[in-house]
Amino acid sequence: MLTFYYAPQTCALATHIVLEQVGCDYQALRLDFKAGQQRSPDFLAVNPKGRVPAIVTERGVLTETPALLLYLAQQFPQAGLAPLDDPFALAELQAVNAWFCSTVHVAHAHRPRAYRWADDPAAQAAMQAKVPQNMGECFDWIESSVLRGPWVMGDRFSIADPYLFTLSGWLAADGVDIARFARVADHRQRVAALPAVQRVLPLHR
Amino acid sequence: MLTFYYAPQTCALATHIVLEQVGCDYQALRLDFKAGQQRSPDFLAVNPKGRVPAIVTERGVLTETPALLLYLAQQFPQAGLAPLDDPFALAELQAVNAWFCSTVHVAHAHRPRAYRWADDPAAQAAMQAKVPQNMGECFDWIESSVLRGPWVMGDRFSIADPYLFTLSGWLAADGVDIARFARVADHRQRVAALPAVQRVLPLHR
Repeated sequence: MLTFYYAPQTCALATHIVLEQVGCDYQALRLDFKAGQQRSPDFLAVNPKGRVPAIVTERGVLTETPALLLYLAQQFPQAGLAPLDDPFALAELQAVNAWFCSTVHVAHAHRPRAYRWADDPAAQAAMQAKVPQNMGECFDWIESSVLRGPWVMGDRFSIADPYLFTLSGWLAADGVDIARFARVADHRQRVAALPAVQRVLPLHR
Repeated sequence: MLTFYYAPQTCALATHIVLEQVGCDYQALRLDFKAGQQRSPDFLAVNPKGRVPAIVTERGVLTETPALLLYLAQQFPQAGLAPLDDPFALAELQAVNAWFCSTVHVAHAHRPRAYRWADDPAAQAAMQAKVPQNMGECFDWIESSVLRGPWVMGDRFSIADPYLFTLSGWLAADGVDIARFARVADHRQRVAALPAVQRVLPLHR
Protein backbone atom coordinates (compact mmCIF):
# COMPACT_ATOMS: atom_id res chain seq x y z
CA MET A 1 0.00 0.00 0.00
CA LEU A 2 1.21 3.51 -0.86
CA THR A 3 1.10 6.36 1.64
CA PHE A 4 0.22 9.68 0.07
CA TYR A 5 0.86 13.03 1.76
CA TYR A 6 -1.15 16.04 0.69
CA ALA A 7 -2.44 19.40 1.83
CA PRO A 8 -5.55 21.24 0.66
CA GLN A 9 -5.13 24.00 -1.95
CA THR A 10 -1.90 22.50 -3.24
CA CYS A 11 -0.92 20.76 -6.46
CA ALA A 12 -1.15 17.46 -4.56
CA LEU A 13 -4.76 17.41 -5.76
CA ALA A 14 -3.65 16.24 -9.21
CA THR A 15 -1.85 13.18 -7.86
CA HIS A 16 -4.71 12.47 -5.43
CA ILE A 17 -7.20 12.33 -8.29
CA VAL A 18 -5.01 9.92 -10.24
CA LEU A 19 -4.47 7.68 -7.21
CA GLU A 20 -8.23 7.45 -6.86
CA GLN A 21 -8.85 6.96 -10.56
CA VAL A 22 -6.43 4.08 -11.10
CA GLY A 23 -7.85 2.17 -8.14
CA CYS A 24 -4.56 2.22 -6.24
CA ASP A 25 -4.42 0.82 -2.71
CA TYR A 26 -3.27 3.87 -0.74
CA GLN A 27 -3.80 5.83 2.42
CA ALA A 28 -3.95 9.61 2.23
CA LEU A 29 -2.43 11.63 5.06
CA ARG A 30 -3.43 15.28 5.24
CA LEU A 31 -0.97 17.94 6.40
CA ASP A 32 -2.07 21.25 7.87
CA PHE A 33 0.26 23.76 6.22
CA LYS A 34 -1.10 26.66 8.29
CA ALA A 35 -0.04 24.75 11.41
CA GLY A 36 3.39 24.15 9.86
CA GLN A 37 3.06 20.36 9.68
CA GLN A 38 5.13 20.35 6.46
CA ARG A 39 8.09 21.36 8.66
CA SER A 40 7.47 18.78 11.39
CA PRO A 41 10.32 16.32 12.03
CA ASP A 42 8.03 13.43 11.13
CA PHE A 43 7.24 14.82 7.71
CA LEU A 44 10.75 16.10 7.00
CA ALA A 45 11.90 12.51 7.58
CA VAL A 46 9.59 11.56 4.69
CA ASN A 47 10.31 14.52 2.40
CA PRO A 48 13.15 16.78 3.51
CA LYS A 49 11.97 19.36 0.96
CA GLY A 50 8.92 19.92 3.19
CA ARG A 51 6.56 19.88 0.24
CA VAL A 52 3.63 17.89 -1.02
CA PRO A 53 2.77 15.75 -2.86
CA ALA A 54 4.93 12.91 -1.57
CA ILE A 55 4.28 9.20 -1.94
CA VAL A 56 5.93 6.53 0.19
CA THR A 57 6.37 3.30 -1.76
CA GLU A 58 7.97 0.08 -0.61
CA ARG A 59 11.14 1.15 -2.46
CA GLY A 60 11.26 4.69 -1.09
CA VAL A 61 9.74 8.14 -1.34
CA LEU A 62 8.77 9.81 -4.60
CA THR A 63 8.02 13.52 -5.07
CA GLU A 64 7.25 16.18 -7.71
CA THR A 65 3.92 16.17 -9.49
CA PRO A 66 5.06 15.41 -13.06
CA ALA A 67 7.14 12.46 -11.81
CA LEU A 68 4.34 11.08 -9.64
CA LEU A 69 1.77 11.36 -12.41
CA LEU A 70 3.93 9.46 -14.89
CA TYR A 71 4.82 6.88 -12.23
CA LEU A 72 1.16 6.14 -11.56
CA ALA A 73 0.40 5.99 -15.29
CA GLN A 74 3.19 3.42 -15.65
CA GLN A 75 2.20 1.41 -12.57
CA PHE A 76 -1.42 1.21 -13.73
CA PRO A 77 -1.13 0.94 -17.52
CA GLN A 78 -4.65 -0.49 -17.81
CA ALA A 79 -5.98 2.94 -16.81
CA GLY A 80 -4.62 4.35 -20.08
CA LEU A 81 -3.54 7.68 -18.57
CA ALA A 82 -0.47 8.20 -20.78
CA PRO A 83 0.69 7.05 -24.25
CA LEU A 84 3.34 4.78 -22.78
CA ASP A 85 4.19 3.09 -26.08
CA ASP A 86 4.57 6.25 -28.15
CA PRO A 87 7.60 8.39 -27.18
CA PHE A 88 6.50 11.34 -29.33
CA ALA A 89 2.99 11.47 -27.88
CA LEU A 90 4.40 10.95 -24.40
CA ALA A 91 6.82 13.85 -24.94
CA GLU A 92 3.92 16.08 -25.98
CA LEU A 93 2.13 15.15 -22.76
CA GLN A 94 5.26 15.56 -20.64
CA ALA A 95 5.91 18.97 -22.24
CA VAL A 96 2.46 20.10 -21.07
CA ASN A 97 3.05 18.84 -17.55
CA ALA A 98 6.57 20.32 -17.43
CA TRP A 99 5.19 23.70 -18.52
CA PHE A 100 2.42 23.43 -15.93
CA CYS A 101 4.96 22.90 -13.13
CA SER A 102 7.66 25.32 -14.28
CA THR A 103 5.51 28.17 -15.59
CA VAL A 104 1.83 28.04 -14.56
CA HIS A 105 2.35 26.79 -11.01
CA VAL A 106 5.20 29.29 -10.62
CA ALA A 107 3.03 32.15 -11.95
CA HIS A 108 0.44 31.27 -9.30
CA ALA A 109 2.99 30.81 -6.50
CA HIS A 110 4.03 34.46 -6.70
CA ARG A 111 0.78 35.33 -4.90
CA PRO A 112 0.81 33.01 -1.84
CA ARG A 113 4.58 32.49 -1.74
CA ALA A 114 6.10 35.72 -3.04
CA TYR A 115 8.43 35.68 -0.02
CA ARG A 116 10.39 32.94 -1.74
CA TRP A 117 11.79 35.36 -4.32
CA ALA A 118 12.22 38.68 -2.47
CA ASP A 119 12.45 39.79 1.15
CA ASP A 120 11.10 43.31 0.70
CA PRO A 121 7.33 43.46 1.43
CA ALA A 122 6.86 46.06 -1.30
CA ALA A 123 8.52 43.75 -3.82
CA GLN A 124 6.29 40.89 -2.68
CA ALA A 125 3.27 43.11 -3.20
CA ALA A 126 4.51 44.02 -6.68
CA MET A 127 4.79 40.32 -7.54
CA GLN A 128 1.34 39.61 -6.18
CA ALA A 129 -0.08 42.49 -8.22
CA LYS A 130 1.19 40.89 -11.43
CA VAL A 131 -0.24 37.41 -10.73
CA PRO A 132 -3.62 38.08 -12.38
CA GLN A 133 -1.85 39.18 -15.57
CA ASN A 134 0.57 36.24 -15.61
CA MET A 135 -2.07 33.63 -14.79
CA GLY A 136 -4.36 35.25 -17.34
CA GLU A 137 -1.69 34.98 -20.02
CA CYS A 138 -0.97 31.36 -19.11
CA PHE A 139 -4.65 30.51 -19.44
CA ASP A 140 -5.01 32.48 -22.68
CA TRP A 141 -2.36 30.13 -24.03
CA ILE A 142 -4.01 27.04 -22.54
CA GLU A 143 -7.37 28.10 -23.99
CA SER A 144 -6.01 28.79 -27.48
CA SER A 145 -3.28 26.21 -27.86
CA VAL A 146 -2.74 23.65 -25.10
CA LEU A 147 -6.22 22.26 -24.44
CA ARG A 148 -7.08 20.19 -27.50
CA GLY A 149 -10.49 19.17 -26.21
CA PRO A 150 -12.44 17.57 -24.84
CA TRP A 151 -9.41 16.54 -22.77
CA VAL A 152 -6.05 18.28 -22.63
CA MET A 153 -4.38 15.90 -25.07
CA GLY A 154 -7.48 15.33 -27.21
CA ASP A 155 -9.90 12.44 -27.18
CA ARG A 156 -8.34 10.64 -24.28
CA PHE A 157 -8.25 11.60 -20.60
CA SER A 158 -4.63 11.64 -19.39
CA ILE A 159 -2.49 12.67 -16.44
CA ALA A 160 -2.52 16.23 -17.83
CA ASP A 161 -6.23 16.59 -17.04
CA PRO A 162 -6.18 16.43 -13.24
CA TYR A 163 -3.14 18.72 -13.39
CA LEU A 164 -4.98 21.34 -15.46
CA PHE A 165 -8.01 20.93 -13.19
CA THR A 166 -5.79 21.67 -10.18
CA LEU A 167 -4.32 24.79 -11.78
CA SER A 168 -7.63 26.13 -13.08
CA GLY A 169 -8.98 25.76 -9.53
CA TRP A 170 -6.55 28.48 -8.45
CA LEU A 171 -7.77 31.11 -10.91
CA ALA A 172 -10.47 32.67 -8.73
CA ALA A 173 -8.14 33.24 -5.78
CA ASP A 174 -5.53 34.56 -8.21
CA GLY A 175 -7.96 37.25 -9.38
CA VAL A 176 -8.75 35.75 -12.78
CA ASP A 177 -12.30 35.05 -13.92
CA ILE A 178 -12.41 31.59 -15.48
CA ALA A 179 -15.36 32.75 -17.60
CA ARG A 180 -12.73 34.40 -19.87
CA PHE A 181 -11.72 30.89 -20.93
CA ALA A 182 -14.80 29.04 -22.18
CA ARG A 183 -12.96 25.85 -23.09
CA VAL A 184 -11.05 25.72 -19.80
CA ALA A 185 -14.28 26.28 -17.87
CA ASP A 186 -15.91 23.46 -19.82
CA HIS A 187 -12.93 21.18 -19.11
CA ARG A 188 -13.19 22.05 -15.43
CA GLN A 189 -16.82 20.96 -15.27
CA ARG A 190 -16.05 17.76 -17.17
CA VAL A 191 -13.26 16.78 -14.77
CA ALA A 192 -15.27 17.77 -11.69
CA ALA A 193 -18.04 15.39 -12.74
CA LEU A 194 -15.81 12.30 -12.66
CA PRO A 195 -16.60 9.97 -9.75
CA ALA A 196 -12.94 9.83 -8.64
CA VAL A 197 -12.82 13.61 -8.49
CA GLN A 198 -16.09 13.75 -6.58
CA ARG A 199 -14.59 11.46 -3.97
CA VAL A 200 -11.35 13.44 -3.62
CA LEU A 201 -12.55 17.04 -3.72
CA PRO A 202 -14.18 17.09 -0.24
CA LEU A 203 -10.82 16.09 1.26
CA HIS A 204 -9.18 19.19 -0.19
CA ARG A 205 -11.47 21.74 1.45
CA MET B 1 16.80 14.42 -39.24
CA LEU B 2 15.79 16.51 -36.24
CA THR B 3 16.13 20.29 -36.19
CA PHE B 4 17.17 21.66 -32.83
CA TYR B 5 16.77 25.32 -31.85
CA TYR B 6 18.94 26.71 -29.09
CA ALA B 7 20.45 29.89 -27.74
CA PRO B 8 23.64 30.32 -25.70
CA GLN B 9 23.34 30.65 -21.91
CA THR B 10 19.97 28.87 -21.88
CA CYS B 11 18.83 25.48 -20.61
CA ALA B 12 18.89 24.27 -24.23
CA LEU B 13 22.48 23.23 -23.47
CA ALA B 14 21.21 20.12 -21.64
CA THR B 15 19.28 18.87 -24.65
CA HIS B 16 22.13 19.78 -26.99
CA ILE B 17 24.55 17.62 -25.01
CA VAL B 18 22.17 14.65 -25.11
CA LEU B 19 21.57 15.04 -28.86
CA GLU B 20 25.31 14.88 -29.35
CA GLN B 21 25.81 12.01 -26.93
CA VAL B 22 23.23 9.65 -28.40
CA GLY B 23 24.58 10.12 -31.92
CA CYS B 24 21.35 11.62 -33.21
CA ASP B 25 21.21 12.94 -36.77
CA TYR B 26 20.29 16.59 -36.18
CA GLN B 27 21.01 20.12 -37.26
CA ALA B 28 21.38 22.80 -34.59
CA LEU B 29 20.05 26.28 -35.32
CA ARG B 30 21.26 29.05 -33.05
CA LEU B 31 18.99 31.95 -32.10
CA ASP B 32 20.33 35.32 -31.00
CA PHE B 33 18.10 36.22 -28.04
CA LYS B 34 19.70 39.67 -27.70
CA ALA B 35 18.59 40.42 -31.26
CA GLY B 36 15.09 39.13 -30.42
CA GLN B 37 15.19 36.18 -32.83
CA GLN B 38 13.05 34.15 -30.39
CA ARG B 39 10.22 36.53 -31.27
CA SER B 40 10.75 36.42 -35.05
CA PRO B 41 7.76 35.19 -37.10
CA ASP B 42 9.85 32.31 -38.40
CA PHE B 43 10.66 31.00 -34.95
CA LEU B 44 7.22 31.70 -33.49
CA ALA B 45 5.86 29.49 -36.28
CA VAL B 46 8.04 26.71 -34.83
CA ASN B 47 7.46 27.41 -31.13
CA PRO B 48 4.77 30.00 -30.39
CA LYS B 49 6.04 30.16 -26.79
CA GLY B 50 9.17 31.88 -28.15
CA ARG B 51 11.47 29.75 -26.04
CA VAL B 52 14.24 27.24 -26.48
CA PRO B 53 14.92 24.36 -26.55
CA ALA B 54 12.63 23.24 -29.35
CA ILE B 55 13.04 20.20 -31.56
CA VAL B 56 11.29 19.74 -34.88
CA THR B 57 10.61 16.07 -35.59
CA GLU B 58 8.85 14.52 -38.55
CA ARG B 59 5.71 14.29 -36.39
CA GLY B 60 5.82 17.83 -35.05
CA VAL B 61 7.54 20.15 -32.60
CA LEU B 62 8.54 19.17 -29.07
CA THR B 63 9.51 21.57 -26.28
CA GLU B 64 10.38 21.75 -22.56
CA THR B 65 13.67 20.35 -21.31
CA PRO B 66 12.39 17.45 -19.12
CA ALA B 67 10.16 16.22 -21.97
CA LEU B 68 12.93 16.49 -24.58
CA LEU B 69 15.45 14.70 -22.38
CA LEU B 70 13.12 11.75 -21.75
CA TYR B 71 12.14 11.67 -25.42
CA LEU B 72 15.77 11.35 -26.50
CA ALA B 73 16.42 8.70 -23.84
CA GLN B 74 13.46 6.72 -25.22
CA GLN B 75 14.41 7.21 -28.87
CA PHE B 76 17.99 6.08 -28.23
CA PRO B 77 17.61 3.37 -25.59
CA GLN B 78 21.01 1.90 -26.40
CA ALA B 79 22.57 5.04 -24.88
CA GLY B 80 21.21 3.99 -21.48
CA LEU B 81 20.38 7.52 -20.36
CA ALA B 82 17.30 6.64 -18.29
CA PRO B 83 16.01 3.53 -16.45
CA LEU B 84 13.23 2.99 -18.99
CA ASP B 85 12.20 -0.42 -17.65
CA ASP B 86 11.99 0.58 -13.98
CA PRO B 87 9.12 3.00 -13.22
CA PHE B 88 10.33 3.69 -9.67
CA ALA B 89 13.88 4.55 -10.73
CA LEU B 90 12.53 6.56 -13.65
CA ALA B 91 10.27 8.50 -11.26
CA GLU B 92 13.26 9.29 -9.06
CA LEU B 93 15.08 10.63 -12.12
CA GLN B 94 12.03 12.54 -13.36
CA ALA B 95 11.55 14.05 -9.89
CA VAL B 96 15.07 15.46 -10.07
CA ASN B 97 14.50 16.91 -13.54
CA ALA B 98 11.07 18.30 -12.56
CA TRP B 99 12.62 20.00 -9.53
CA PHE B 100 15.44 21.36 -11.70
CA CYS B 101 12.94 22.98 -14.08
CA SER B 102 10.36 24.19 -11.55
CA THR B 103 12.65 25.30 -8.72
CA VAL B 104 16.33 25.66 -9.66
CA HIS B 105 15.84 27.12 -13.13
CA VAL B 106 13.14 29.41 -11.70
CA ALA B 107 15.44 30.52 -8.85
CA HIS B 108 18.03 31.49 -11.46
CA ALA B 109 15.53 33.16 -13.80
CA HIS B 110 14.71 35.80 -11.20
CA ARG B 111 18.03 37.46 -12.04
CA PRO B 112 17.96 37.78 -15.85
CA ARG B 113 14.16 37.68 -16.20
CA ALA B 114 12.80 39.31 -13.04
CA TYR B 115 10.54 41.43 -15.27
CA ARG B 116 8.38 38.37 -15.77
CA TRP B 117 7.08 38.53 -12.21
CA ALA B 118 6.89 42.25 -11.36
CA ASP B 119 6.80 45.50 -13.32
CA ASP B 120 8.35 47.74 -10.67
CA PRO B 121 12.13 48.12 -11.20
CA ALA B 122 12.69 48.21 -7.43
CA ALA B 123 10.84 44.90 -7.06
CA GLN B 124 12.93 43.41 -9.87
CA ALA B 125 16.07 44.54 -8.07
CA ALA B 126 14.80 42.96 -4.85
CA MET B 127 14.28 39.66 -6.66
CA GLN B 128 17.72 39.84 -8.23
CA ALA B 129 19.25 40.52 -4.83
CA LYS B 130 17.82 37.28 -3.46
CA VAL B 131 19.05 35.07 -6.33
CA PRO B 132 22.42 34.26 -4.73
CA GLN B 133 20.64 33.06 -1.58
CA ASN B 134 18.05 30.99 -3.45
CA MET B 135 20.54 29.44 -5.87
CA GLY B 136 22.88 28.82 -2.94
CA GLU B 137 20.13 26.99 -1.05
CA CYS B 138 19.23 24.93 -4.12
CA PHE B 139 22.84 23.86 -4.53
CA ASP B 140 23.24 23.15 -0.81
CA TRP B 141 20.42 20.66 -1.30
CA ILE B 142 21.91 19.27 -4.51
CA GLU B 143 25.30 18.89 -2.80
CA SER B 144 23.91 17.16 0.29
CA SER B 145 21.02 15.14 -1.09
CA VAL B 146 20.38 15.12 -4.84
CA LEU B 147 23.79 14.32 -6.33
CA ARG B 148 24.45 10.68 -5.44
CA GLY B 149 27.83 10.58 -7.15
CA PRO B 150 29.71 10.17 -9.27
CA TRP B 151 26.69 10.97 -11.45
CA VAL B 152 23.43 12.56 -10.33
CA MET B 153 21.56 9.26 -10.05
CA GLY B 154 24.56 7.24 -8.90
CA ASP B 155 26.80 4.95 -10.92
CA ARG B 156 25.21 5.65 -14.24
CA PHE B 157 25.26 8.81 -16.33
CA SER B 158 21.68 9.86 -17.12
CA ILE B 159 19.68 12.72 -18.59
CA ALA B 160 19.89 14.44 -15.18
CA ASP B 161 23.64 15.01 -15.62
CA PRO B 162 23.66 17.43 -18.57
CA TYR B 163 20.76 19.21 -16.85
CA LEU B 164 22.71 19.68 -13.62
CA PHE B 165 25.77 20.70 -15.64
CA THR B 166 23.65 23.39 -17.33
CA LEU B 167 22.34 24.73 -14.03
CA SER B 168 25.70 24.67 -12.25
CA GLY B 169 27.10 26.68 -15.17
CA TRP B 170 24.88 29.57 -14.12
CA LEU B 171 26.20 29.80 -10.56
CA ALA B 172 29.03 32.25 -11.20
CA ALA B 173 26.81 34.79 -12.98
CA ASP B 174 24.23 34.32 -10.22
CA GLY B 175 26.77 35.38 -7.63
CA VAL B 176 27.40 31.95 -6.10
CA ASP B 177 30.87 30.46 -5.80
CA ILE B 178 30.75 26.83 -6.95
CA ALA B 179 33.69 26.13 -4.64
CA ARG B 180 31.12 25.99 -1.81
CA PHE B 181 29.88 22.72 -3.33
CA ALA B 182 32.81 20.34 -3.70
CA ARG B 183 30.76 17.46 -5.09
CA VAL B 184 28.92 19.67 -7.59
CA ALA B 185 32.23 21.19 -8.73
CA ASP B 186 33.64 17.69 -9.19
CA HIS B 187 30.55 16.66 -11.17
CA ARG B 188 30.95 19.73 -13.33
CA GLN B 189 34.49 18.81 -14.27
CA ARG B 190 33.49 15.22 -14.96
CA VAL B 191 30.71 16.25 -17.36
CA ALA B 192 32.86 18.92 -19.02
CA ALA B 193 35.45 16.28 -19.89
CA LEU B 194 33.02 14.18 -21.95
CA PRO B 195 33.74 14.32 -25.70
CA ALA B 196 30.12 15.18 -26.54
CA VAL B 197 30.22 18.10 -24.13
CA GLN B 198 33.54 19.28 -25.54
CA ARG B 199 31.96 19.39 -28.99
CA VAL B 200 28.85 21.29 -27.85
CA LEU B 201 30.28 23.84 -25.42
CA PRO B 202 31.98 26.10 -28.00
CA LEU B 203 28.61 26.55 -29.73
CA HIS B 204 27.11 27.99 -26.53
CA ARG B 205 29.61 30.82 -26.14
